[in-house]
Amino acid sequence: MPKERTITVELGDRSYRIVIGSGLLGGQFELAPYVHGPDCLIVSNETVAPLYLAALKQNLPGRDVSEVILPDGESFKTLASAASVIDGLVRAHANRDTTVIALGGGVVGDIAGFAAACYMRGVAFIQVPTTLLAQVDSSVGGKTGVNHADGKNLIGAFHQPQLVLIDTDTLQTLPARELRAGLAEVIKHGAIADADYFSWLETNMAGLLRGDFELLAAAIQRSCEIKAAVVAEDERERGMRALLNFGHTFGHAIENSLGYGEWLHGEAVAAGMVMAAALSQLEDAQFERLKVLLAAASLPIAPPLVGSGRMAAAMKLDKKVQSKVLRFVLLKRIGEACVTADYPAAILEEVLAMADAAAS
Amino acid sequence: MPKERTITVELGDRSYRIVIGSGLLGGQFELAPYVHGPDCLIVSNETVAPLYLAALKQNLPGRDVSEVILPDGESFKTLASAASVIDGLVRAHANRDTTVIALGGGVVGDIAGFAAACYMRGVAFIQVPTTLLAQVDSSVGGKTGVNHADGKNLIGAFHQPQLVLIDTDTLQTLPARELRAGLAEVIKHGAIADADYFSWLETNMAGLLRGDFELLAAAIQRSCEIKAAVVAEDERERGMRALLNFGHTFGHAIENSLGYGEWLHGEAVAAGMVMAAALSQLEDAQFERLKVLLAAASLPIAPPLVGSGRMAAAMKLDKKVQSKVLRFVLLKRIGEACVTADYPAAILEEVLAMADAAAS
Repeated sequence: MPKERTITVELGDRSYRIVIGSGLLGGQFELAPYVHGPDCLIVSNETVAPLYLAALKQNLPGRDVSEVILPDGESFKTLASAASVIDGLVRAHANRDTTVIALGGGVVGDIAGFAAACYMRGVAFIQVPTTLLAQVDSSVGGKTGVNHADGKNLIGAFHQPQLVLIDTDTLQTLPARELRAGLAEVIKHGAIADADYFSWLETNMAGLLRGDFELLAAAIQRSCEIKAAVVAEDERERGMRALLNFGHTFGHAIENSLGYGEWLHGEAVAAGMVMAAALSQLEDAQFERLKVLLAAASLPIAPPLVGSGRMAAAMKLDKKVQSKVLRFVLLKRIGEACVTADYPAAILEEVLAMADAAAS
Repeated sequence: MPKERTITVELGDRSYRIVIGSGLLGGQFELAPYVHGPDCLIVSNETVAPLYLAALKQNLPGRDVSEVILPDGESFKTLASAASVIDGLVRAHANRDTTVIALGGGVVGDIAGFAAACYMRGVAFIQVPTTLLAQVDSSVGGKTGVNHADGKNLIGAFHQPQLVLIDTDTLQTLPARELRAGLAEVIKHGAIADADYFSWLETNMAGLLRGDFELLAAAIQRSCEIKAAVVAEDERERGMRALLNFGHTFGHAIENSLGYGEWLHGEAVAAGMVMAAALSQLEDAQFERLKVLLAAASLPIAPPLVGSGRMAAAMKLDKKVQSKVLRFVLLKRIGEACVTADYPAAILEEVLAMADAAAS
């Protein structure tokens, strides 16, 4: 078995490596060659910093390291938090050759990456994702940003990291609920792009939930490979990258209707995928397989009862809406997705009605 | 004489045109083909909107036009102003295919461009600069951003416009002080890149100050050509683009020491160019020519008496500082500049001392 697994995101002069393995954060992987200037700023949150900040700092000998510790949670993924990271850079007298290091989950990575994109019109940054969701999805591909009161990720930038360092040991301290939320994105990758991977997940879900290290590392690798290939093809989401948003239009509407942070992003995406699959008019057996796999991961397979009207209103502002026509990522079958506005309006109404009463 | 003058900024698939002429804003130039989606948001300020907003809107028939009117002044070039533009886009339910149109001076263009860069990770924008400074400098090249309390333009993005539409008629309503401030950047272009242009400016400064339309249009064209060539060569300021910052390291320190908005940007750059020329140890006759030309434009040729210590402190945070070594754009001779950290420290002290007592 390899000591560490490496995937390259091929983006010309913005290419970078994803390195996956055990003990990397604390020194098994030498971080210093990726920090080009004399100083760096670590951005983390109040939950993750006590666990991993000291180890990460030891992996940066001779560097002038400062830090910004944010409160934990999606509700803090705001422009104000990004501004506080920028304030930290200003306080540290950071120059254009500074490096921002995001240590935490997707929220930390999105905020830190956006601050790095904006500070002096762009400085380097490194992702050190510590949640499964960030490791398999949000840390790869350069999407950064914060939420607006009226919509998720409405404020942001495409800004690729220099490196994604995935230390699988961090999953040992991840709450079970967050592990499951990360598995929603893992299942998504199988559903949209790789039927064999989906089958492998069906076989191994119990082991993944148990935290089996080898299985988790294998899933992280396969998910990162899928994501890296999509990003290499379509960095700025002008086409196929949108497929990664499977379940996200409904999922964002759920998060927006409930208030950010009530459900975890992965939980909302899980229910959103069931809704999108229903809109896809997938054949019954395939639809069942998706629901069964999500349920096996203890993920929700129906939206919360926020009301179909509220869901619909929330979707009006979704970023995936083009020219006010609602487009969705739908499944042709497990392993193949497409973006389309071609679906019966009546079925969309039925799907939204899942938020009015308990779904079967 | 040509009805309108056109320059192309060559940036591959991000190339765009600068169109210069009279009456363009109100319809002599058809704007609609550059607004691809059904809606757009015009960003302007309280001074410019009453003069030109109605005309610009008439040039957008059939489009769903909304607007955000900012207070006027450099002191409002803040993250909060950018957020208010984003709020306007959210209120208008703007999608990825919306277009932001900046109608105003450099402050409006920088804020609107930054908001366009961040909204949904980047939407289209058009510059309609109405001050000489914005027409010859800030509207071209894709630098967008806002100030931080501790430094100018510390928060921003590179985001190229789709079009720069320069209606020279707008200069008729520009206060004389702002016309002069714009001439500082015009003089800068001659000083760093084109000795013949510098000589032409020496010959024609009186006419330019008088507001001679043909002379102004010729200067705007030549300055935009110089700027466009530099930007095409080095979009992200990794090299020669930094030459455009001649006078700006000192200039920013002046603005920062006085408080933004006390002196106009162009005024601070004028004094900053004299300081940079002094640090360049330019030969006496050339140094005199620069001072005489700036004085002919009624621009300051010495910094305000804020104290050398304060100036030095302000420069610590300047974006042009790399790895804490102060680098400056210096002149080899009129028409040729370089970026260097190679200058006698004693001379820098002398130059900063100009802020301690009146300079000769």
